[in-house]
Amino acid sequence: MTQPSEIERLIEMMAKLPGLGPRSARRAVLHLVARRDAQLAPLARQMQLVADTARECTNCGNIGTADLCPICTDPRRANGQICVVETVADLWAMERASVFSGRYHVLGGTLSALDAIGPEELRIPQLVARIDEEAVREVILALPATVDGQTTAHYIADRLEERVALTSLAQGVPIGGELDFLDDGTITAALNARKPL
Amino acid sequence: MTQPSEIERLIEMMAKLPGLGPRSARRAVLHLVARRDAQLAPLARQMQLVADTARECTNCGNIGTADLCPICTDPRRANGQICVVETVADLWAMERASVFSGRYHVLGGTLSALDAIGPEELRIPQLVARIDEEAVREVILALPATVDGQTTAHYIADRLEERVALTSLAQGVPIGGELDFLDDGTITAALNARKPL
Ligand SMILES: [Zn+2]
Ligand SMILES: [Zn+2]
Repeated sequence: MTQPSEIERLIEMMAKLPGLGPRSARRAVLHLVARRDAQLAPLARQMQLVADTARECTNCGNIGTADLCPICTDPRRANGQICVVETVADLWAMERASVFSGRYHVLGGTLSALDAIGPEELRIPQLVARIDEEAVREVILALPATVDGQTTAHYIADRLEERVALTSLAQGVPIGGELDFLDDGTITAALNARKPL
Repeated sequence: MTQPSEIERLIEMMAKLPGLGPRSARRAVLHLVARRDAQLAPLARQMQLVADTARECTNCGNIGTADLCPICTDPRRANGQICVVETVADLWAMERASVFSGRYHVLGGTLSALDAIGPEELRIPQLVARIDEEAVREVILALPATVDGQTTAHYIADRLEERVALTSLAQGVPIGGELDFLDDGTITAALNARKPL
């Protein structure tokens, strides 16, 4: 037994993070253990701080530190547009492109018959409720160009048509592509070239 | 501002880990924030525990939770053999192969004129001291097959020759290869086929 059980346990926990496996988790932990005061302890404190304060925005599903996220509390962003995304990572990708000035709605997934994910699991009822509450005129569907993503887009379009204008990101989103992997320019082009459904 | 500064700060800290960049750090943090109670808080506590308890073995440089690591306090491993490795990751790789039953000495690097790393930076004086203190008969040099690694091996061999038998891992270590990336079978073959310098 060369790895103390505390460190072994930390490696196991790190290896569960997306993009890390046992080997990269070992390297990361050794890196941190060699920098206990400068990196490991501050990282532990920051994680605890986020664990204590982070929460989902009750309105849009974004991550914030209060009941409502900074976008939902910013009156300048109540411009009648809601951009519907699958994940918070996609919301952040849209924000990095700095091209959209309305609000968001994070579904938290896409409809999937296979995984038994229906509208109730996806905050779709909350989206429908927001249309009147926030005087929404346009819903921009920025969902993945996958079968499930497009099924979800059509389902939402059916629910909302005749109440709002419906558009979708058009140009530049590759088939099977995820927003979080696109560069800012591609996202900008796709938003500017959005088309009615 | 969509990412709260606490989360932004956590992403920046995670992005400094080896093998992670800004994108994978974002994904890891979103993964953790969505699992605050099940993963993020326990990970924070485990990191704090390791930050509070982990330390370098004063004898060999391995990571443990006491002044001396479990290998240095195990009398069955005082068999007259010391295996010299560059990093703790290399020590762990040797241990995973379960083929070496002696003790280790972690240099913490290799000699490098370019980076001004000399013997004093590498715990080489401590290695020399251990030869008599622990009645060492054989020093196995398991250093990288790089120019700096081999320079270091020859320097140590010069310092220790006529005092101990000197061997090096031989067969199976690829040129430019690092121990931590080898499979256990290759490490076993290299140790079994070790040859005198
Ligand atoms: Zn919000
Ligand atoms: Zn030790």
